[in-house]
Amino acid sequence: MLMNPQELLTDVPKRVENPDLNNILAYTVKPDVINLAGGLPDPAVFPSEPLRDIAERVLKENYAAALQYSPATGVPEFKREIISFLSRNLGVEAKEDQLLVTSGSQEALFALAMSIFRPGDVVFTENPTYYVAVSLFKAFEAVPVGAPMPSGQLDVNVLERKIKEVEPKRRKLIYVMPNAQNPTGASMTEETKRHLLEVAERYGLPVVEDDPYGMINYEGKSPRPLKAMDRNNQVIYMSTMSKVLAPGLRLGWMIGDKELVNAVSNVKQVIDLNTNTLSQYVAAYALRGRVIENNLNNIKRVYTSKRNAMVDELRDSFGDRTDFVKPESGMFVFSFFKGVNTRESLKEAVKRSVLYLPGDALYVSDPRYDAARLNFTYPSEDKIKEGIRRLRQAFY
Amino acid sequence: MLMNPQELLTDVPKRVENPDLNNILAYTVKPDVINLAGGLPDPAVFPSEPLRDIAERVLKENYAAALQYSPATGVPEFKREIISFLSRNLGVEAKEDQLLVTSGSQEALFALAMSIFRPGDVVFTENPTYYVAVSLFKAFEAVPVGAPMPSGQLDVNVLERKIKEVEPKRRKLIYVMPNAQNPTGASMTEETKRHLLEVAERYGLPVVEDDPYGMINYEGKSPRPLKAMDRNNQVIYMSTMSKVLAPGLRLGWMIGDKELVNAVSNVKQVIDLNTNTLSQYVAAYALRGRVIENNLNNIKRVYTSKRNAMVDELRDSFGDRTDFVKPESGMFVFSFFKGVNTRESLKEAVKRSVLYLPGDALYVSDPRYDAARLNFTYPSEDKIKEGIRRLRQAFY
Repeated sequence: MLMNPQELLTDVPKRVENPDLNNILAYTVKPDVINLAGGLPDPAVFPSEPLRDIAERVLKENYAAALQYSPATGVPEFKREIISFLSRNLGVEAKEDQLLVTSGSQEALFALAMSIFRPGDVVFTENPTYYVAVSLFKAFEAVPVGAPMPSGQLDVNVLERKIKEVEPKRRKLIYVMPNAQNPTGASMTEETKRHLLEVAERYGLPVVEDDPYGMINYEGKSPRPLKAMDRNNQVIYMSTMSKVLAPGLRLGWMIGDKELVNAVSNVKQVIDLNTNTLSQYVAAYALRGRVIENNLNNIKRVYTSKRNAMVDELRDSFGDRTDFVKPESGMFVFSFFKGVNTRESLKEAVKRSVLYLPGDALYVSDPRYDAARLNFTYPSEDKIKEGIRRLRQAFY
Repeated sequence: MLMNPQELLTDVPKRVENPDLNNILAYTVKPDVINLAGGLPDPAVFPSEPLRDIAERVLKENYAAALQYSPATGVPEFKREIISFLSRNLGVEAKEDQLLVTSGSQEALFALAMSIFRPGDVVFTENPTYYVAVSLFKAFEAVPVGAPMPSGQLDVNVLERKIKEVEPKRRKLIYVMPNAQNPTGASMTEETKRHLLEVAERYGLPVVEDDPYGMINYEGKSPRPLKAMDRNNQVIYMSTMSKVLAPGLRLGWMIGDKELVNAVSNVKQVIDLNTNTLSQYVAAYALRGRVIENNLNNIKRVYTSKRNAMVDELRDSFGDRTDFVKPESGMFVFSFFKGVNTRESLKEAVKRSVLYLPGDALYVSDPRYDAARLNFTYPSEDKIKEGIRRLRQAFY
């Protein structure tokens, strides 16, 4: 009797499967496809020369440590540099025992979810929200309950009503992206942030602040993270090197209550023992050398121009048949198209070799079928404009 | 009402906590401690110069891809190099869709476990076995059932009896290290391997072959992996770059039935999206440049000498009060000490600034309390000898 994979597997792999993500990945291997569906940075903004020098220095000066196993909680030199970086740029303060380094912030969210969710537990989210986080919550049979974001501001009163509707022991977490939300690109005002914190404290609910894009702001200073306003360790701050340095380093982290971080570290340890040591040393040197700060204006300049190209072409091609808020940060335009079912129209778009993420995939309830998430950071400006024109042909 | 970590957490973080591992890590930061407890390679055998050149080349020629996100299943260039490496060195054949790249083989085992275990399911292991794997199984409430290894050979008849004692739907997996077993250092004979495969096929049980040390053999050729004898995709082969190249690259993989690998890939994707891209490119270049093959004799030479130093000092210091099989491969001597309770004596050893792993931690049942796992790859030969002499003082 041979092993039968279908009999062997539980329903976990099916539950976490993300057909949209898989489809996108399948189509993007075709070279003529214009991919507005993904969420990749532009390799042109990678500080590849400084990183090359740094990699060489790390492997000369520090190879014995950089090529070795490292502590599950993170390489101390890297942790100290993250703490200093967050303090000087975002006003987020942390101690070393409140910080866990992970393989991207995805792993931080995964290890936290595994540490707190029982089947049927509820996680409160923005609606729409980051769809890969939702797949992750489903791995643990956690139920996402969303609150709407009229004009880009989370409706905290609705959120509170939704919290009240759930029995207390099932309430586990609030998951939000207060700065440069994915997909909407909106940031919470300080007032919304204060209100959210107040509600979180009222119900004893920890808040995950997922903040990959917070520093990539196109209209001025970075907004103050929720974590910088958090007096009581109610906020679990997650972020990453992926958008400000390079995703290929696969580095993220969480900051929170030290007892909680310690528990999540135990889980992280059984997942993969420790985060990539070489990357941590490379990133530590990069942070010490101010590589991110020195490159940030370059990133903003390139992305501002690309965002403008997309926004202008959307207006030119679609006129008043499209409706969106010009994003002040992040990597996406989240746009609505009058009378279009973006899920059904995807086939037409694929025929014209342009891809986007159908908006309904991003809602945890009450999906809108006329929305699309459009990435402007990866394709060239010409491709962005051509992609939007192809969308016009596919949609109308 | 503030968030209360103790109320928030499930029992998962406690269940996976590994006090031995944590203790070891806590003690090893003291610089005067001789650490025979860990399982680290010697940094002196890292091919740091070739890796430095390679990192520089990768970040010159291929930075746009190497610093970017990459497919959840692995970077195709790296996958092709692994396949060619395993084929030419170990006779293991695989296709690209049968191979999943992971953050160390630990993550492969974790994602597989998450894909197949329901609470109460049984995983059949060698006894003693790799203790971090056991912590991992416990995360999913899987129950390890061990079969003994008299004279280093898994007793497959006992294993079969243990399988029969478990109700069929609870039997999920056989987990073994057929080559350079951790902790015993023993390798299965071809006869034992054939018998094991036969039993696995009789009961429809997949076999994880965990093979980190298979190529590090001190007495001749590498043993043929179980996977090389596997005609029916019954074996899931897991291995890593950690022992033959460098743990800091944090790269491992699994090879198995493609339907199974695909399901496990979905789970891997929600854990951390993809494995470190930069490391995958560095390792791909290293494999292409035969860096591992060129360095393997150096590794074997250094470790053979260290093993001999440990074995000789054990005999000199303990005489017939110690009993062990001289390991032909791997990184450990697993030794028994007449009349000693190694768990109780650990305190005495710590006083003398020497650490080892108490053997009882490595048994899934019927622990022996007179055993210790002693690592000979990391400490210098002088430290090994001094460490064993300190053990002598602590034990008798």
